[in-house]
Amino acid sequence: MGYKFEDDSLMLHTDLYQINMAETYWEDGISERNSVFEVYFRKLPFDNGYAVFAGLERIIHYLENLHFTETDISYLRKQGFQEDFLNYLKDFRFTGNLRSVVEGEIVFANEPLVRVEAPLAQAQIIETALLNIVNYQTLIATKASRIKHVIGHGVVMEFGSRRAQELDAALWGTRAAFIGGFASTSNVRAGKLFGIPISGTHAHSMIQAYRDEYTAFHKYARRHKDCVFLVDTYDTLKSGVPNAIKVAKELGDKINFLGIRLDSGDLAYLSKEARKMLDEAGFTETKIVASNDLDEYTIMNLKAQGAKIDIWGIGTKLITAFDQPALGGVYKLVSIEDETGKMQDTIKISGNPEKVTTPGIKRVYRIINSMNQKSEGDYICLETEHPETEERLKMFHPTHTYISKFVTNFIAKDIHADIFKNGELIYQSPDIFSIQKFAEDNLEVLWDEYKRSLNPEEYPVDLSPKCWENKMKHIEEVKNNIKRNG
Amino acid sequence: MGYKFEDDSLMLHTDLYQINMAETYWEDGISERNSVFEVYFRKLPFDNGYAVFAGLERIIHYLENLHFTETDISYLRKQGFQEDFLNYLKDFRFTGNLRSVVEGEIVFANEPLVRVEAPLAQAQIIETALLNIVNYQTLIATKASRIKHVIGHGVVMEFGSRRAQELDAALWGTRAAFIGGFASTSNVRAGKLFGIPISGTHAHSMIQAYRDEYTAFHKYARRHKDCVFLVDTYDTLKSGVPNAIKVAKELGDKINFLGIRLDSGDLAYLSKEARKMLDEAGFTETKIVASNDLDEYTIMNLKAQGAKIDIWGIGTKLITAFDQPALGGVYKLVSIEDETGKMQDTIKISGNPEKVTTPGIKRVYRIINSMNQKSEGDYICLETEHPETEERLKMFHPTHTYISKFVTNFIAKDIHADIFKNGELIYQSPDIFSIQKFAEDNLEVLWDEYKRSLNPEEYPVDLSPKCWENKMKHIEEVKNNIKRNG
Repeated sequence: MGYKFEDDSLMLHTDLYQINMAETYWEDGISERNSVFEVYFRKLPFDNGYAVFAGLERIIHYLENLHFTETDISYLRKQGFQEDFLNYLKDFRFTGNLRSVVEGEIVFANEPLVRVEAPLAQAQIIETALLNIVNYQTLIATKASRIKHVIGHGVVMEFGSRRAQELDAALWGTRAAFIGGFASTSNVRAGKLFGIPISGTHAHSMIQAYRDEYTAFHKYARRHKDCVFLVDTYDTLKSGVPNAIKVAKELGDKINFLGIRLDSGDLAYLSKEARKMLDEAGFTETKIVASNDLDEYTIMNLKAQGAKIDIWGIGTKLITAFDQPALGGVYKLVSIEDETGKMQDTIKISGNPEKVTTPGIKRVYRIINSMNQKSEGDYICLETEHPETEERLKMFHPTHTYISKFVTNFIAKDIHADIFKNGELIYQSPDIFSIQKFAEDNLEVLWDEYKRSLNPEEYPVDLSPKCWENKMKHIEEVKNNIKRNG
Repeated sequence: MGYKFEDDSLMLHTDLYQINMAETYWEDGISERNSVFEVYFRKLPFDNGYAVFAGLERIIHYLENLHFTETDISYLRKQGFQEDFLNYLKDFRFTGNLRSVVEGEIVFANEPLVRVEAPLAQAQIIETALLNIVNYQTLIATKASRIKHVIGHGVVMEFGSRRAQELDAALWGTRAAFIGGFASTSNVRAGKLFGIPISGTHAHSMIQAYRDEYTAFHKYARRHKDCVFLVDTYDTLKSGVPNAIKVAKELGDKINFLGIRLDSGDLAYLSKEARKMLDEAGFTETKIVASNDLDEYTIMNLKAQGAKIDIWGIGTKLITAFDQPALGGVYKLVSIEDETGKMQDTIKISGNPEKVTTPGIKRVYRIINSMNQKSEGDYICLETEHPETEERLKMFHPTHTYISKFVTNFIAKDIHADIFKNGELIYQSPDIFSIQKFAEDNLEVLWDEYKRSLNPEEYPVDLSPKCWENKMKHIEEVKNNIKRNG
């Protein structure tokens, strides 16, 4: 499937400046210095109270296959990169460590999701792809979780492939949706590659091909015993539903008349009328499937109107995260080896206070109350700290520091796992059902107040006192440097 | 790069219902009947006055490589598809005709963009991927064209890879942006695969790695003579710009001090102040590059404020089409062979009038006034009509039919090209620069009123009288059928 080049690779799926910087580091002899970068986002998407992490599976595949192919090198040569540096790139592999939250984990703003510890040039070059993957997949898993939350015990199917932002989004987006709680996908390739259950019956074009619904339903049912008939090609209540009922009665036990699907018009009204017609015809178990630009808002509205919808089909609004199509995840250098071999923490200052980075190699612990198994908040501390061995923790808001509390009787759960160690994959991905279940279980730890889809409470993501002090010290240093040189 | 399977293919990148329908057709003996489907969208994106078509290059690659691999077949077997049908799929290839507008063509709502004429089962199965590709790439080419329109003669670079919706969107999205008028991309793989110029210098992390701007700029300039220094890591005016100027003065002729880049803060204010500082230091030719969540609205605003920005870097808002992340392109059956071998036009009715399809095999002509070379509108007619040989055309609005005009002295330009004939590719894609130029030239044919970014005039897309009458006849037939059976 390589486009244009047999050896097309993802190695060049990076921004040019990453390679420029790698060359600068290499020429300066610092390309192999140990460096630590963290991936995080600054604001939860959709004003949601939490996000669901996804993307690790693809990151693993990307890092395992990372090398410059022959045509990659010759392209860079044409761009003016010199032989000495190109020679260095020929042996390029990922040899670092990767710690990451695992897929399905609940995550929040301003906490490290993925932590790369690698030679500087490597860590730099992989930035673009890592963000490209995590930003999209986490966004969609989160959107899916929001939609599933509103639906509750109902079933929700993903079928947005045709509206996705190109092929990878259709494929990996539907996987992320499954992690967020969706039951199935229409995308057959996603079924094959990931083991997600696939679903779908027929489209309007089949009715048009046979020119009438009655014939089309009959023809379909000859081979496909589990029937969901699409009833809105001509007129839902006058033609579609009556034809579906007629065919179902004629075929009786020969088929399972699982449902009808509504794909246009007033779904509240049509579903209620269709329900009556189905019930009167004795098909009380036959489900009503609805689709047509649905999202968590329209679903909540339809439910409030008493719509008789059992199964929801979601396309565009999920797969593009329509109301906020990008998660602003960033990748920041937090520590780097100096000329003496010692790690030095680094900071980036900004006029926008929320853009100031938090220096240092960090860990994130979820502080779970031992009594009720609910989370008290997340606790970001330096690698050298061990909150899991503490009896009492001081947690305070990193900006509004007067908001603070002491916690006792807690379990401190390290939310990261070791994925790569010295370039070697040491993590085994669970199957997709286990990931979905893991996400569901994780949500149990959150109070309902953090989970409501409108105006959720802000979940505490706090810095340890040491981590906070380290940050303040670095801010002070930078300010003094500017004053001295300014 | 196959994920999980060596022979991973795009064949299964389709909705399950397409394969279900193909099986129904095959079992019923109608899978090879000739059918005609059209791709079109119902509403222009971003309330723009036109769209720029893109996606053909990838469609060609997709169709040329279309076949079920061994693991595709065995996956379908596990899903319960039966051997007879699977045997049929083993020899599946695209054997049909494809007519399409070519990339860079200006297109409008409700006109056929791609026309597939193929055996019914084939035409059905390829729907999902075709829409997935056209919807996204056309959306981004259009967004790019809007942004370029506001920028005018300024230069605009794409660097949204990290925020794109997965990898394909980063790759094909930046190609679409180039078609829409962007000058370069940061994505190195896109440069390699498509020949798009690549651009980029360094990031904040390089400053952090060296812990001070002065050192970092110096190190960068040793190998990279064309320097654009990023100046906002610590403090733009107090630290970044002074350090850039200092290094540029020290290095003098050894480098080309091409520019500085602003990536945060008040871009209007900072650019004006930085301009003064650069000018006072004698660097009057050094450009100011700006980025940070820009789109056509912020750019227009910054220009109105007199911002001194020469080069614009656009990421998130372009690559995700942030304000409308999906184009609602659809794929509708318009004609199908009957049991006697005759083509029969088909229609889909809907409660929403704009969702009623237009039956029949159609062509689209752009009616260009011979006097001023400006377009009078697009004219959709039946395949059998030949407006290019007419002296006088009646053009009228397909919904508000009283809006009509007669046109004489025109050139009727068929906007479609033949791409595949009986499954064989007969079209040679132009290089990416020619496509960009073609898009630019196409826009010349439109009056300015259609091109403004806010409240553009509605461009006429009219039906020929025969096409309109054919549609009315089919609507009447369906209504009578429903009455008869209802």
